Amino acid sequence: MKDWLTVQTGIRNGDKRAVARGLTWVEQGTDNGKRLVKSLFGSAGRAHVIGVTGAPGVGKSTLVNALALHLRQKGRYVGILAVDPSSPFSGGAILGDRIRMQDSVMDPGVFMRSLASRGHLGGLSRATFGAVTVLDAAGFDTILIETVGAGQSEVEIMQLAHTTVVVLAPGLGDDIQAIKAGILEIGQVFVVNKADRDGADHTVRSIRGMLTLATEHPDWMPPILKTVAERGEGVAALRETIDGHRQHLETSGIWHQFRRTQSEHVVGQVLEDWLLRHLNEARGWPQWPGWLAAIAEGRLDPERVAESVWHGAPYEED
Amino acid sequence: MKDWLTVQTGIRNGDKRAVARGLTWVEQGTDNGKRLVKSLFGSAGRAHVIGVTGAPGVGKSTLVNALALHLRQKGRYVGILAVDPSSPFSGGAILGDRIRMQDSVMDPGVFMRSLASRGHLGGLSRATFGAVTVLDAAGFDTILIETVGAGQSEVEIMQLAHTTVVVLAPGLGDDIQAIKAGILEIGQVFVVNKADRDGADHTVRSIRGMLTLATEHPDWMPPILKTVAERGEGVAALRETIDGHRQHLETSGIWHQFRRTQSEHVVGQVLEDWLLRHLNEARGWPQWPGWLAAIAEGRLDPERVAESVWHGAPYEED
Repeated sequence: MKDWLTVQTGIRNGDKRAVARGLTWVEQGTDNGKRLVKSLFGSAGRAHVIGVTGAPGVGKSTLVNALALHLRQKGRYVGILAVDPSSPFSGGAILGDRIRMQDSVMDPGVFMRSLASRGHLGGLSRATFGAVTVLDAAGFDTILIETVGAGQSEVEIMQLAHTTVVVLAPGLGDDIQAIKAGILEIGQVFVVNKADRDGADHTVRSIRGMLTLATEHPDWMPPILKTVAERGEGVAALRETIDGHRQHLETSGIWHQFRRTQSEHVVGQVLEDWLLRHLNEARGWPQWPGWLAAIAEGRLDPERVAESVWHGAPYEED
Repeated sequence: MKDWLTVQTGIRNGDKRAVARGLTWVEQGTDNGKRLVKSLFGSAGRAHVIGVTGAPGVGKSTLVNALALHLRQKGRYVGILAVDPSSPFSGGAILGDRIRMQDSVMDPGVFMRSLASRGHLGGLSRATFGAVTVLDAAGFDTILIETVGAGQSEVEIMQLAHTTVVVLAPGLGDDIQAIKAGILEIGQVFVVNKADRDGADHTVRSIRGMLTLATEHPDWMPPILKTVAERGEGVAALRETIDGHRQHLETSGIWHQFRRTQSEHVVGQVLEDWLLRHLNEARGWPQWPGWLAAIAEGRLDPERVAESVWHGAPYEED
C-alpha cells in the first residue's frame, strides 16, 4: 500500500494498515506524510487529545494502558502515542511498548504507536501533531499521548493535548521535582498513582498546596486524583474527570479556539516547508558559497541574501 | 546603556557591561538582540566553541570551572554559557551558577552566563547561538557551553560547538546511559571524571568498547581521558586534547565548513523572523478568523491561506 490516495482513503475508513503506513510517513517527515496531514486535517477535530506526563517510575504506562482498556469498555476508539523525546538517535522505546500493549493488538478499536525523535528537534512535535491528525481522521475519538518527564520538548508536545494529566507517585520526591520542572503550569488533572503506598496523602496535599499558591485557575481548578493503575483502581474516576474537562473546554469555548489554533498551525507548517524548499534551492545557486563566505567575513548583509531566498531568485550584484 | 549602537560598540571593545546587556537582549529574543547578533556575526568566527555535556552528578560544572581557570592561566579569554534546557519556566540555575563562579567575577578575561529557556523550544538554541556570537565578537577566544544530559535540546545546542566533550563518572551506570541517550554519536572527546574512584578504568574500557563498536570515526577517533576536576588533575591534558581537536578541524577543512554553516544559520534566522512577522500581520486581517474556521472544516486549502501570508496580502475570494 504505497499509493498516497489509497492510504488516505484507507485512513478515512479506519483501516489499520493504512493508518500504520500513514503514521510511518508522518514520523519520517516525508512529503507524502506532509500531504497526508494537510489533506486529512479537515476531517479531524473530533477526537479528545489527552496528554499523560510524569517522571519515569510513576507508573505512567500502566496508567495509560488501564485508561485505554477502560475507555474501550465504554465503547470508545482509542489511539495511543508513546512519545520519547529523550531518544534522539535510537528510537529505542518502540519494541518495549509494542510488547507491553500486545493485548490490544487484536482489538480494532485500539491503535498504539511509539514516536521517537529522528534527530531534528522540532520534528518530534510536528510528527506528533501529524500522528494525532491521522488517528483523529481515522475515527479514534480519544487519543492518549504518553510522554516522559517535563523537559522542553514535552511542553511543546503537551500543547497538542486538550487535557494534560500529570502523574506523580508517593515517595519519589516528586512534589519538589514537579515545581522544578514547571509541571504545575501544564497540568489540568493531577494523578497520584501507586496510591496504596505510604505517603500518597502527603503527595496529594503538597500538590494541592502548590496549586493554590503557584498559579491562578479562574475557570478550572485542577483536580487531584488517586489511582492504583496496576489494579485499575481510580481509573473510572479519572476517565470521568477527563470527560468533565472536555465538557469544560466546550462550554467555555476553549475547545473551539483550540481548533482554530491548530488551523493556524497547519498554515504555519506549509509556510515552513516552503521556506525550507526555497533555502534548498538557494543552496544550488552558483553565488551561494561566495555569499556565505562574505557573510562570515562581515562583507555582506545576511538580509540581502535572505531576500533572494524569499523571492526565489538571486539578487543582481551591484 | 540602552542604546543599541553603544552596546554594539561596547561589545566589540570587550566591555563586560555591554556584553551583559547584549546577552540579556539575546536571551529575551528581543528585536535589539536579533539586530545585534546579525550585525556582530561578521566580527565573530575566531572563538573555539567547546560543548561540555553529561548527566547530573558527574562533576561537569567543576570540570568546566577547572578548565576555565587553566585556560586563563594560559592567557586565553574564556566565555562560559551554562545552558539549562530542563527548566522551561523558572530559569532556576542562574543564581547557583553565579555563586559558583564568584572567583572569576573580578577577572576581565572570564565571562559567565546562565541561559534558561523562555518557554519556546527553538528559542534556547537560538539564544545560545546569539550568546556565542556576542562573546566571540567581544574577543573571548574560547567559549565553553555547559549543558545537562543529552536530550533533544542538548543535541541541538551541541551542534553549535566545534568540539563536544562528554563527561562521565565511574559507578553511575553511565556506560549504559550513554548508549541509551545516543551520547556517543555527539562526543569528540570523552572524559571520565572523578577518576580516583573505583571503577574508573572499567568506565574507560566500556566507553572504548562502545566507540569501537558503535560508530565509525574515519578521521578522528575520540580520545578518552581521566580527570579529577576537584583537584585539577588531568585538566591540562584535556585542554591539549581539545586544542588538538581544533587543529584537526582546521587541517581537515571542517572548521571552515562550520563557519559557512553558521552563515546559513543566520540567513535562516532572518527568514524565520520575516515569516513570523508576516504571520502576525495576517492575524490582523478581517478574513483571518473565517479562513481558520474554513480550514478546520475542510472547506479551504491551507496552501491558499499560506500563499496570502507569504505575499503579505489576502487573496481575493472567487
